[in-house]
Amino acid sequence: MDLQQRIVSLQGEFLLFALTPPRLATTPEKAQEIADITFERLASLGVDGLILYDIDDEADRNPEERPFPFLPTMDPADYLERHLEAWPTPVVVYRATAKYTERDLREWVGSQDAARRMTVFVGAASRGKRVATTLRRAQQLRAEVNPDLLLGGVAIPERHTRKGDEHLRLVAKQEAGCAYFVSQVVYDGNGAKNLVSDYAYECRDRGLDPVPIVFTFSGCGSIKTLEFLRWLGVDVPRWIENDLRHADDPLDASLEHAEATALELMSFCRHLGVPFGINVESVSIRKAEIEASVHLAERLRSKLAR
Amino acid sequence: MDLQQRIVSLQGEFLLFALTPPRLATTPEKAQEIADITFERLASLGVDGLILYDIDDEADRNPEERPFPFLPTMDPADYLERHLEAWPTPVVVYRATAKYTERDLREWVGSQDAARRMTVFVGAASRGKRVATTLRRAQQLRAEVNPDLLLGGVAIPERHTRKGDEHLRLVAKQEAGCAYFVSQVVYDGNGAKNLVSDYAYECRDRGLDPVPIVFTFSGCGSIKTLEFLRWLGVDVPRWIENDLRHADDPLDASLEHAEATALELMSFCRHLGVPFGINVESVSIRKAEIEASVHLAERLRSKLAR
Repeated sequence: MDLQQRIVSLQGEFLLFALTPPRLATTPEKAQEIADITFERLASLGVDGLILYDIDDEADRNPEERPFPFLPTMDPADYLERHLEAWPTPVVVYRATAKYTERDLREWVGSQDAARRMTVFVGAASRGKRVATTLRRAQQLRAEVNPDLLLGGVAIPERHTRKGDEHLRLVAKQEAGCAYFVSQVVYDGNGAKNLVSDYAYECRDRGLDPVPIVFTFSGCGSIKTLEFLRWLGVDVPRWIENDLRHADDPLDASLEHAEATALELMSFCRHLGVPFGINVESVSIRKAEIEASVHLAERLRSKLAR
Repeated sequence: MDLQQRIVSLQGEFLLFALTPPRLATTPEKAQEIADITFERLASLGVDGLILYDIDDEADRNPEERPFPFLPTMDPADYLERHLEAWPTPVVVYRATAKYTERDLREWVGSQDAARRMTVFVGAASRGKRVATTLRRAQQLRAEVNPDLLLGGVAIPERHTRKGDEHLRLVAKQEAGCAYFVSQVVYDGNGAKNLVSDYAYECRDRGLDPVPIVFTFSGCGSIKTLEFLRWLGVDVPRWIENDLRHADDPLDASLEHAEATALELMSFCRHLGVPFGINVESVSIRKAEIEASVHLAERLRSKLAR
């Protein structure tokens, strides 16, 4: 069963792997080299799909200094077309809708082959941002221009922890055409469980079927990476932070936490009857961290009910 | 090895069972009957010790309406002396120090046999309360009058979640003579892990040995009991609340959660090298809830490394 079927039939239990496109300044030769290495590393993994992120500055969403400098990256659609065209499974291309004009977005959406491409629309990171196309307008465009293209939305447990209404946002996005959701990196399993639980019971009350929620996991090789995750708005429980700070090998310790949290969420979702997918990303370009992410994906893949 | 030895040798892995004394209006005959039933129910459990709570109104700590009316209970020391004197293991008698004059407290502390009695001092629930003896003064009295009497303090993960400094309070209490800590009922395992972790690393930084932390668990037979726990300041994660609200048998579901949380904390403490005990209490006087607590205690007892 392919990824789209697993999503529309509400089966879940699929595995994705997420990549950040190379930096904008990368030469075409170097970009192809990176793509080739990616192919090689992921070939034996048997993922159901790939995710390509659309990186935004996001400096306006957090007044504190960014722990890593922002380096613009290639447009994920361009990177895919030019360097990853031969990739054999469906690819989920993120679109930060505020960056694109309506015309550009319409054209891109219209030209996608729904059998091989999917998308996730992400709204503006903050209210102050200049917005070329709103999330809502982008959702309408997809429904008009290419309704077969499977649309996903982002699910943010941290927002649920602060405001308690993220499950209602998910339901609204579902009504606007979203067939699945993807979380940001999850370190706080408790927060994710709160969101899944509220979403499951909200769906039950409305007579809706819950759609798959894809939970994202990742290793974290250093305290600086952890600080960057925090800057991006990821809740990292104190006990996990302490563990990473005192670990001989923080990357290894973070992978153990990621695996434990993933397994807990998987069993929780099955128990509640909410379909789910697993997404593993590498937040860094360090070789050790990328390989660690591949190992994490392998371990989690073996736990999926296929 | 008896309870006191397990505590002072920092071994942990012990089981306590906590009782609330009967209402103040109970006749001596009825109180004896309750005590006899308690004996009978707990006889086969093989607990290492009993806890008797000292119930305070606490209306001043929360302006919202108390879900259950406050009914004054017998003084735990009186109840013990009059009706549970034959109990074979050590008994931990709570003392809400604000309720007692210095003279009364000094006399009570001085008359306790440290081989058979222990105590936990609890400070005033709010700053506005009239205080006959402060927690600090009570700690000094114990050190002067009966330093062999093992003193415990309360550990409140919820305060750590709000303020982030509960681990420093634990260290200060330890320096004031506390040989162990007892938590209130734990539903938020994540909050408890944050506290244990910060406490463990604080001890390591100061060259202190962490002392046993006793985690308290309990069934919760109804949403009203859950609301009462919240009123008392216990954090109950949304996903657990949802589960209890939708369970055919909330008591059963709550026991499963309590067991899962206890096992998680036990393995976390062993991993971190923090000694721990388990305390099971029954927050209600309903027969089904008391029996459920006894079953929970049995199950957890079998998981302790003895």
